[in-house]
Amino acid sequence: MPGSLFTKELQPLMAQLDLKHENDKQAAAPVQTAEAPCLQRAKARLLKGVSYFSGDMAVFAKWMEKQFFLLQLLDWVLRGAAQVMFVNNPLSGLIIFAGLILQNYWWALNGFVGTLFATISALILRQSRGAIAAGLYGYNGILVGLLMAVFSNAGNWYWWLLLPNIFMSMMCPIVSSALASINSRWDLPVFTLPFNILVCLHMVATGHYNHHFPQVLIQPRTELPNITWEEIDVAKLFMSVPVGIGQVYGCDNPWTGGIFIISLFISSPITCAHAVLGSTIGMLSGLALAAPFGAIYFGLWGYNCVLACIAIGGMFYALTWQVHLLAITCGFFCAYLGSAIANIMSAFGLPACTWPFCLSALTFLLITTETNKIFKLPLPKVTYPEKNLCFFWKMKKQEKQEKLEEERKKKEEELRAIDDEMILNEKEELRLNLTAMEEANDMQIVSMPEAESEQNDNGQQQTTEDYPTDEMPANYL
Amino acid sequence: MPGSLFTKELQPLMAQLDLKHENDKQAAAPVQTAEAPCLQRAKARLLKGVSYFSGDMAVFAKWMEKQFFLLQLLDWVLRGAAQVMFVNNPLSGLIIFAGLILQNYWWALNGFVGTLFATISALILRQSRGAIAAGLYGYNGILVGLLMAVFSNAGNWYWWLLLPNIFMSMMCPIVSSALASINSRWDLPVFTLPFNILVCLHMVATGHYNHHFPQVLIQPRTELPNITWEEIDVAKLFMSVPVGIGQVYGCDNPWTGGIFIISLFISSPITCAHAVLGSTIGMLSGLALAAPFGAIYFGLWGYNCVLACIAIGGMFYALTWQVHLLAITCGFFCAYLGSAIANIMSAFGLPACTWPFCLSALTFLLITTETNKIFKLPLPKVTYPEKNLCFFWKMKKQEKQEKLEEERKKKEEELRAIDDEMILNEKEELRLNLTAMEEANDMQIVSMPEAESEQNDNGQQQTTEDYPTDEMPANYL
Amino acid sequence: MPGSLFTKELQPLMAQLDLKHENDKQAAAPVQTAEAPCLQRAKARLLKGVSYFSGDMAVFAKWMEKQFFLLQLLDWVLRGAAQVMFVNNPLSGLIIFAGLILQNYWWALNGFVGTLFATISALILRQSRGAIAAGLYGYNGILVGLLMAVFSNAGNWYWWLLLPNIFMSMMCPIVSSALASINSRWDLPVFTLPFNILVCLHMVATGHYNHHFPQVLIQPRTELPNITWEEIDVAKLFMSVPVGIGQVYGCDNPWTGGIFIISLFISSPITCAHAVLGSTIGMLSGLALAAPFGAIYFGLWGYNCVLACIAIGGMFYALTWQVHLLAITCGFFCAYLGSAIANIMSAFGLPACTWPFCLSALTFLLITTETNKIFKLPLPKVTYPEKNLCFFWKMKKQEKQEKLEEERKKKEEELRAIDDEMILNEKEELRLNLTAMEEANDMQIVSMPEAESEQNDNGQQQTTEDYPTDEMPANYL
Repeated sequence: MPGSLFTKELQPLMAQLDLKHENDKQAAAPVQTAEAPCLQRAKARLLKGVSYFSGDMAVFAKWMEKQFFLLQLLDWVLRGAAQVMFVNNPLSGLIIFAGLILQNYWWALNGFVGTLFATISALILRQSRGAIAAGLYGYNGILVGLLMAVFSNAGNWYWWLLLPNIFMSMMCPIVSSALASINSRWDLPVFTLPFNILVCLHMVATGHYNHHFPQVLIQPRTELPNITWEEIDVAKLFMSVPVGIGQVYGCDNPWTGGIFIISLFISSPITCAHAVLGSTIGMLSGLALAAPFGAIYFGLWGYNCVLACIAIGGMFYALTWQVHLLAITCGFFCAYLGSAIANIMSAFGLPACTWPFCLSALTFLLITTETNKIFKLPLPKVTYPEKNLCFFWKMKKQEKQEKLEEERKKKEEELRAIDDEMILNEKEELRLNLTAMEEANDMQIVSMPEAESEQNDNGQQQTTEDYPTDEMPANYL
Repeated sequence: MPGSLFTKELQPLMAQLDLKHENDKQAAAPVQTAEAPCLQRAKARLLKGVSYFSGDMAVFAKWMEKQFFLLQLLDWVLRGAAQVMFVNNPLSGLIIFAGLILQNYWWALNGFVGTLFATISALILRQSRGAIAAGLYGYNGILVGLLMAVFSNAGNWYWWLLLPNIFMSMMCPIVSSALASINSRWDLPVFTLPFNILVCLHMVATGHYNHHFPQVLIQPRTELPNITWEEIDVAKLFMSVPVGIGQVYGCDNPWTGGIFIISLFISSPITCAHAVLGSTIGMLSGLALAAPFGAIYFGLWGYNCVLACIAIGGMFYALTWQVHLLAITCGFFCAYLGSAIANIMSAFGLPACTWPFCLSALTFLLITTETNKIFKLPLPKVTYPEKNLCFFWKMKKQEKQEKLEEERKKKEEELRAIDDEMILNEKEELRLNLTAMEEANDMQIVSMPEAESEQNDNGQQQTTEDYPTDEMPANYL
Repeated sequence: MPGSLFTKELQPLMAQLDLKHENDKQAAAPVQTAEAPCLQRAKARLLKGVSYFSGDMAVFAKWMEKQFFLLQLLDWVLRGAAQVMFVNNPLSGLIIFAGLILQNYWWALNGFVGTLFATISALILRQSRGAIAAGLYGYNGILVGLLMAVFSNAGNWYWWLLLPNIFMSMMCPIVSSALASINSRWDLPVFTLPFNILVCLHMVATGHYNHHFPQVLIQPRTELPNITWEEIDVAKLFMSVPVGIGQVYGCDNPWTGGIFIISLFISSPITCAHAVLGSTIGMLSGLALAAPFGAIYFGLWGYNCVLACIAIGGMFYALTWQVHLLAITCGFFCAYLGSAIANIMSAFGLPACTWPFCLSALTFLLITTETNKIFKLPLPKVTYPEKNLCFFWKMKKQEKQEKLEEERKKKEEELRAIDDEMILNEKEELRLNLTAMEEANDMQIVSMPEAESEQNDNGQQQTTEDYPTDEMPANYL
């Protein structure tokens, strides 16, 4: 899911990205001048090739703008599928759909229907075209579609389910828009809140005991879980890391999780690393809080931490090592919160959805601090961690240059002030000389009245010689 | 219940309404010039007569301002009773009280006490007099009073109940004022949130197992409801529409519901139509989500949709057909939400109250869109759907005129620019002529030094003749 | 707990307080001029002595700024302990710790660890140094530490508990900072919301059925409590007042409660009085709502009302008798809310914590009213009730003076306007005289042409005499 509804600032930004994008990439790559020029060229070509399908595929997005509408819609749907993980990349979206199909055909279909109708609904409601094109209205739709299928107790291929699926998907942009009106006051994204609200709405409105749309039975824990540390399965524990990433989309197949990791890596390695880190943090937290092993193996402790770590670790904050520590802290907090919310919501027969991620990430994005090492990006500037970092560096550079410029100006002013003072001193000296000379002349005049006219001329000459020096500083001032 | 706390903007507005009101009415009525003048006059008189007791009865409100305080208070209480349905009309309030008495004497008494004390408390707390006079502090009070009586398990005429009733009614303006401080940031009304908060507070604070103020027992569903489609009673299903409207005030008597429909029609036909539409939507949603027939017949699926449809369909948005569709969508969403909230709150022994309406209407009022067909009225301008529509039309007209005016100005400026250019060109020409003449003069001077003084005079004359034309354009510029 | 995060405005404020503080104290004391000067001097000396350890001990705080860091940290921790009751005073904090040790060693240790790590975490997160020094980051920490120990089912001296204790304490500044970002929009403090959130988080995340950190079992009421009014124990009922104050820190020992009362009285008698009042209101409310006597004796009805009464009664509003009534109303509302929240949260195995206080106090702080008797202090100006009152009085005095000044100016302007008018009238008269004279002159000229030059001079003389009077007023205008 995305950062946010980027509003109109995004559109012009995307149009001008193609060139900048490559420049950024090249700037980011350390240009080793010692290498052979042929190797360098090959590397540059490779980087350029990579830039076509990594990041947010801005060149492709621009090319798409001139294509047939249905093709455009498909691009938006694929981007929407990837935006669940904050990835604005149709290729990642395609790979994610492949992973979903590997997991379950029916779920994949429901996910596709959800994304499609959420995007269409956003078009009908006349939401910002830039945000729609970035998939920011689709990611809640895919989650609504998928999870409604996952938690349905009516079994696969229960076609009636598509009706509430379509209705709820089409409600996504409405709820997104409403929440954005509130969250934008604090420059916060809506995350997956619309999905959380709508899926919980559907599940609790129908419930387990319903004739049309029954849900799976979820009940609160009422006795001590049977945990014996001797029985722990280390292989399954390791496997819980990709499973945790898969659980973001409600999938428990470790291969699906692996495919998702690949799709993340294509777009942004930083995102990918934080996803793995988050899943690991979740698993460790589960062990620390004495959770039943089954829940840990099933990835239920991981998926919220995955999203929280991605969001804090480079997506909405510029990645510094302080932010990296903050992301880890947020991961542990999110795991704690996940357990709490799961226990509360089970009282209503509800799963935790991604409420823990939303609440923990929003909390950590609301922090204010006096250090400048934790820099929250303005929402319209959020793209993907690598580019956010470039933005942050550029901004810092600019600030430094401005500081240097200011210092330079200050120094210049000081020098000028010194010059002015010197000129003034010189002026004063000349004036003193002049008055001294005039006095001398006057004395001469008094003593030698016969030489008056001659001396006078001379005196006048001197003054005309002096005047220029007397007035010259005025030009410098 | 009202739109909102209209604050001080309302007071002057109400004072000047009497004349405007009639003008609006007449403007809204299509003046058929083909009719006989006598018929026309009769119609105008009828419209004027209707205007005295329809809409917000602004003439009556103005007349009331000079009356005895207790009479004024009665007016405010009656308006408060009608404001539950967003109707600012004492006649509607009177009819609603009649409906309540038809339902249950004890409930009606509690409702009256609630409205009265809520209004008095607002006076003590020095809230805006305009808002009090519009009944905006009474509608939560009547609901608190009524519903506390409805959900009390102590039976009718348990006089001790009046104590918490009065306390909670008097808390209404406090909670209203606090919520308004928050909601006003998004230009949103508080709806019935104070009522929801306070009634839930009372019910859950005492609970079913209480010696002083026991509540009726509400428990969550724990088994499949027994639904056989053959047993459906179509007559009861139709009856559920007025019952749903009656349930806004907690009344299950269809006649009471019918009386409420009449009271709505008196003030605003659009409101009335949306109320019926909302109740129908709720009934259909109940069938779609496999609700037990009993709950549908009892109007529990209707009352929230009634309020949501009224609020969105013309009350806070200007009624266009896009807004009408939005109101229908909001109705379905509200029904879904109603089922969800009822299930959640039953876990605490609570009814759904009007939480679903509040949350769905607030969500739909927070939407932002790029189309101008969905126009949200600024809160101080909200009155009743017909007048809101007039305001919207007038605004559109004004915008059009402003556009035309701008275009006119643009054209004028263009013409002026052309004129200026022409004048400049003429100036330039004259100057050229002048210089040519002067050159000729100079040549004459050179050739004829004896004619110097004469020619000079001539030249000066010419320049003095030229200056006016040279300076004249400056006045036009 | 504190008012709020005073941000940077606090720091300069605290530095300049030492002198002002004493002045305020002296100004507040009614100077009886009839007394002997020796007695007066003794009194002044006593007041000065009292000012050193009462109020917010600003002199001590200033002196502390130059001390060793660990000593400073201890000061902050002690202030943090007292800030739970809105008291910014290390001596009160010391006495409170004494009370805690009297109650339970293990709890006191956990409370200390919580305050310490919360303060350290705030330092790491680079929060405002002024707020840290006022203990505004510690008070949530002490509550988190204490209540996690109180509600732990693992018994005393279960050392592993310190791990989640430290984690949750260190999360306090993060949650505080995030909540402050939201609440500051309405100029509201965060109260104990971080504590409520974090303790509920820990308790519900682990729950009663947990191997590592089991919580005490809390279950909802499912039958009528056994209340016989004959069995009521009046002594215990009276004792419930100090117990209620002790329960703010989770202590049920009446002596501990008594010690807390003393610690409050040292810093601010108004705070102390409202604490006792609040506890009494809570006890009465419990009786009114038919609560089981055991809960009332145990102080569970008191502690929220204690905090609510302190917060409204002089802490965030300037204390007038209207505000005093508001504080009492808030106390009753808080008790109602307390019962409601306790019933709801028991469904999840949670205690009510101080949610009722937070919600009721925030509601009452959000009220807007047209009277100027209810004055909400701007958050950076909040200190302690006595000083808040001084601020309010000073402000009122200033307003009065400004009003008088304005009236004076108005009067002066009026006088000047009258003067101007008089001058203008004189001018007009002179002009009329002049024209009359000129006319007479003209007539003389006509009749006596031979006297022309003489008369002309005369006339000119007259006009030159007139001109000064004609132009003089221009200087006054």
